[in-house]
Amino acid sequence: MFVLGIDPGLTRCGYGCVKWTGPNRVKAVSAGVLTTHHTTDLPLRLATIQREVRSLIEEYQPEVVAIERVLFQVNVQSAMSVGHASGVVMAEAATAGCEVVQYSPNEIKLAVTGWGGADKQQVERMVRAQLGIEQPLKPVDAADAIAVALCHTAIVGIPEPTRAGAPK
Amino acid sequence: MFVLGIDPGLTRCGYGCVKWTGPNRVKAVSAGVLTTHHTTDLPLRLATIQREVRSLIEEYQPEVVAIERVLFQVNVQSAMSVGHASGVVMAEAATAGCEVVQYSPNEIKLAVTGWGGADKQQVERMVRAQLGIEQPLKPVDAADAIAVALCHTAIVGIPEPTRAGAPK
Repeated sequence: MFVLGIDPGLTRCGYGCVKWTGPNRVKAVSAGVLTTHHTTDLPLRLATIQREVRSLIEEYQPEVVAIERVLFQVNVQSAMSVGHASGVVMAEAATAGCEVVQYSPNEIKLAVTGWGGADKQQVERMVRAQLGIEQPLKPVDAADAIAVALCHTAIVGIPEPTRAGAPK
Repeated sequence: MFVLGIDPGLTRCGYGCVKWTGPNRVKAVSAGVLTTHHTTDLPLRLATIQREVRSLIEEYQPEVVAIERVLFQVNVQSAMSVGHASGVVMAEAATAGCEVVQYSPNEIKLAVTGWGGADKQQVERMVRAQLGIEQPLKPVDAADAIAVALCHTAIVGIPEPTRAGAPK
């Protein structure tokens, strides 16, 4: 199963695709960041994200697109921008026939590191450990996106009867 | 010039298309509401809105898509849902090559009724007066969407040198 993780954002939208073949059998396929420039009009930036996400889905044919849920931060305008981008990603993924799931930042940290309060460095180190990668993962948005995908594989890897908080 | 006004929403997304041929020369072309059901998964609802908006743009070929800006309401979860839907509409419109503009609720009320604090009934009555429609406009989401389109025509109808708050 291919899982495409997305850390949504307007200026930087991280993506990470992993191949999962069973519990503890996960391999990184690709990761990177889609960027749009802050001086470009918002609708054109969203159209760019739409086009690039469509292209990623066409290339990797993921069964599942896992997206980090947008929470309200101190900067509400920034949260709304991320919300717009996240909406575009969800619509594209559903249109392409993928299963679409959202996880909160705490669910992702808990699934990947075992602790919902983990910081970005701890998440990045655990992502590398799970994938057997020695070099630091850069940029951090890509590592975050892989963490979203790993959160999904961790949850589907738990046998159905004992699974808690699993998506439909 | 055809202007498609959108009052974004996840459960009810109003649309209204008007034809504008100069100051005080505006005609209603079409109006209605796109609906999705609250029991359907969010990504599928957004995919429906994406498909329907694409279809509206293909049908009416608007030069401009004018969208009501999403503000943070008391219910932040609801505001985020509208934000997702609004992002999908903006991306679709920009991809189709339309000019995309956003107006705040107060800008719309001010442009249509002359008062930024107008209520929904006052907006609906002024929309009908401007379009020469005698019957009440229903549903209200459709009237709101036409108001967004009329806000744009009111602003582009003001001669350039004296125009304030006009979009690019």
